[in-house]
Amino acid sequence: MTDRYASFVQSAAGRALVKRLGLPDPPRLRRHHPGDPLLAGPALLGSATGGRLAEPVAEILTAAGVELADPAADAAADTPQRYGALLFDATGITDSTVLRQLYDFFHPQARAVLPSGRVIVLGTPPGECATPREATAQRALEGLVRSIGKEFGRGITAQLVYVTRAESATRTSLESTLRFLLSGRSAYVSGQVIRVGAGAASAPTDWDRPLDGQVVLVTGAARGIGAALAKVLARDGAQVVALDVPAAGDALAAVANEIGGTAVQLDLTAPDAPTRLADHLASRHGRVDVVVHNAGITRDKTLGRMDADRWDQVIDVNLSSQERINDVLLERELIPAGGRIVAVSSIAGIAGNRGQTNYATSKAGVIGLVDSLAPVLRERDISVNAVAPGFIETRLTARIPLVVREAGRRMNSLAQGGLPVDVAETIGWLAWPASGAVSGNVVRVCGQSLLGA
Amino acid sequence: MTDRYASFVQSAAGRALVKRLGLPDPPRLRRHHPGDPLLAGPALLGSATGGRLAEPVAEILTAAGVELADPAADAAADTPQRYGALLFDATGITDSTVLRQLYDFFHPQARAVLPSGRVIVLGTPPGECATPREATAQRALEGLVRSIGKEFGRGITAQLVYVTRAESATRTSLESTLRFLLSGRSAYVSGQVIRVGAGAASAPTDWDRPLDGQVVLVTGAARGIGAALAKVLARDGAQVVALDVPAAGDALAAVANEIGGTAVQLDLTAPDAPTRLADHLASRHGRVDVVVHNAGITRDKTLGRMDADRWDQVIDVNLSSQERINDVLLERELIPAGGRIVAVSSIAGIAGNRGQTNYATSKAGVIGLVDSLAPVLRERDISVNAVAPGFIETRLTARIPLVVREAGRRMNSLAQGGLPVDVAETIGWLAWPASGAVSGNVVRVCGQSLLGA
Repeated sequence: MTDRYASFVQSAAGRALVKRLGLPDPPRLRRHHPGDPLLAGPALLGSATGGRLAEPVAEILTAAGVELADPAADAAADTPQRYGALLFDATGITDSTVLRQLYDFFHPQARAVLPSGRVIVLGTPPGECATPREATAQRALEGLVRSIGKEFGRGITAQLVYVTRAESATRTSLESTLRFLLSGRSAYVSGQVIRVGAGAASAPTDWDRPLDGQVVLVTGAARGIGAALAKVLARDGAQVVALDVPAAGDALAAVANEIGGTAVQLDLTAPDAPTRLADHLASRHGRVDVVVHNAGITRDKTLGRMDADRWDQVIDVNLSSQERINDVLLERELIPAGGRIVAVSSIAGIAGNRGQTNYATSKAGVIGLVDSLAPVLRERDISVNAVAPGFIETRLTARIPLVVREAGRRMNSLAQGGLPVDVAETIGWLAWPASGAVSGNVVRVCGQSLLGA
Repeated sequence: MTDRYASFVQSAAGRALVKRLGLPDPPRLRRHHPGDPLLAGPALLGSATGGRLAEPVAEILTAAGVELADPAADAAADTPQRYGALLFDATGITDSTVLRQLYDFFHPQARAVLPSGRVIVLGTPPGECATPREATAQRALEGLVRSIGKEFGRGITAQLVYVTRAESATRTSLESTLRFLLSGRSAYVSGQVIRVGAGAASAPTDWDRPLDGQVVLVTGAARGIGAALAKVLARDGAQVVALDVPAAGDALAAVANEIGGTAVQLDLTAPDAPTRLADHLASRHGRVDVVVHNAGITRDKTLGRMDADRWDQVIDVNLSSQERINDVLLERELIPAGGRIVAVSSIAGIAGNRGQTNYATSKAGVIGLVDSLAPVLRERDISVNAVAPGFIETRLTARIPLVVREAGRRMNSLAQGGLPVDVAETIGWLAWPASGAVSGNVVRVCGQSLLGA
């Protein structure tokens, strides 16, 4: 369950050996602890001519206690300045002939970003652009950001954030996403394209408790990612309803006790499970603000050797049961306005995987659930998103044979596997009341894995 | 420029050694030769309950001379039947609970597909589905298809074809795509999701000359993919206008002579290039039915070490010049109704690449060009698509150091690099008058490379 090589590499003796032998060098990632500043150094904010976001972004950064660098002063200084983040408002780029402004901003700073620093490019969603030329230039940003993610190294992540032009969008719409991406919460998220719309978002009183008072259901909460999730959500202020199958009852009770939440033992595939769950939530809490569909199973076999039960179980647990629960909770209006649904997909659902036709089908379906439900639930002010974990260090991945495990672990821009907490922090962000403008997204938590489609 | 290992493996001595040592085993791919049957064996066609495509698909297959298997007779036969293709109409799947029909069809036949056989699943575009449940189930198909592509091996490819529900769509809309995917033309295309709409498509008199009489412009035609493309298009009946820079004049002339086409020496980045090109096409041909933007350059450096010229040149040649040429040709109405624009993107434009911020930005922009121009040009009956090549055996890839080259070559479902002709055949299909219902697609020609986003 641990990456011993990474621990070794990060020790003094390990570092010396890695340098001498040219071994892979997984950096120690900056992770979030309550009270941490958002960044380890000042942020440098640039803007293409005519951009519309530099001002609100500067306001958000200042409000969040981030020091904004003064490039003129830095250029005049004796020692080169190093930055915790580079942010560039690219919304002014309306034609490929002015993409050069990206180069002009990033080229001189390519080696000035601190370890575990952040690169964020902000653009206009191509679908909202006024002309094909503008849409083309805005779409081009993705190639830059994904390349920077692969190039900068040292735990630095790079993201593209498309921000709607809709007039109803406010500074608050964007704030939760910037705070998440800059902070150590997004340690294992890189190379992602995130769309921020105009959904209603309410800022918390305390950004260290962004889920204060929220009732959050977590399925599959007894172990692994689900247990990490329950803890992260409780740390951030949520009242957690931790659910798992009766067989995992002891582990589940331990998680619930540790975080002061409640435990629900339920087999989600039972025909009456959605109703029983809805009854429980209605009687105990009167609502559920956030539903996290984390429960999932694998039953791997190649298709020719797979028995029908393996197919049926995986589809039912990972996909159909999510649909049944959503339908009942929505029909009974137990998810109020401002509610959140977050589902767990997988890189396998994006790229497919040998031996996982059942799992990949179910996890691709989860993406379809997000795509199709998000527009429908927008009018009820409920967001729907998914995370797609890559290689995460859990009990399950610890069982993978060494060579395959090492390949899975290192084949990403951060040269290491993620931790359950990394998935949990990402789900947490999507669950915040402040994240109402983020809906219909599938965010990979994969360290920018090479794998994809 | 050749994959010597693959040649060796496909020899008698090589085969024996590969088996004994457990070495990678790249299969010999079935490629197209005029007059070839579409498939090497009968096709097995299945359908989910309530599907709408089994009938038109059966008609297309029969018209194309494909033998349709009789599953009942095959089941009764002494020796197990083997199939050239498995096709499944999944449009009847309106809910995840009936995804099981996919398993029921594919599980028994998973080992019955001939080498270089084809798996094609047909669905409804999730965006056209009546309910979120249906959209979810249809989206789930992608996970199955991508997993089958990774699992079946032996040169077998798997694709998902989403076919519009629009009533204006006809059997002809789908025919060119099925013929391409079943044939050896699509040898190196796998794991792709292709959208077939309702654009006007006209079937050729002779499917072995699907470009008969079409005037086709190919940029970057002197070498590599461009030269292969010129030959494939001419073989398929096109009048090819082969364009390249003056410095490549001799190689260009050789290509043009070989195929009975014409050569145009032009630097596409010159300010007057679009006008001069338009003048040439207007005076010599009066029109250009198909424009293939194949010209492209790389100038690799990490962003910190890249000079501004490398950035500018790559963006200009690979992206801005395509836009300028499109604009002039469209404004002067030299591309008639039924016209085609096909651009060359790259896996780097999808996934990003270390040392290629400039190239990846330009190639991501090409995807934006397709996305943004396709809906605009639909009303003029002009389609816009792109191909995104993966590892293709060319002069350029032959220069990559051995270990990196071997990794690039083998990290895909077909365990080998593609050939220039594979990219050419794919562009050819998108250029056919019969392919008018295919627009706004980006089709990877990458053997289902592991790399992606």
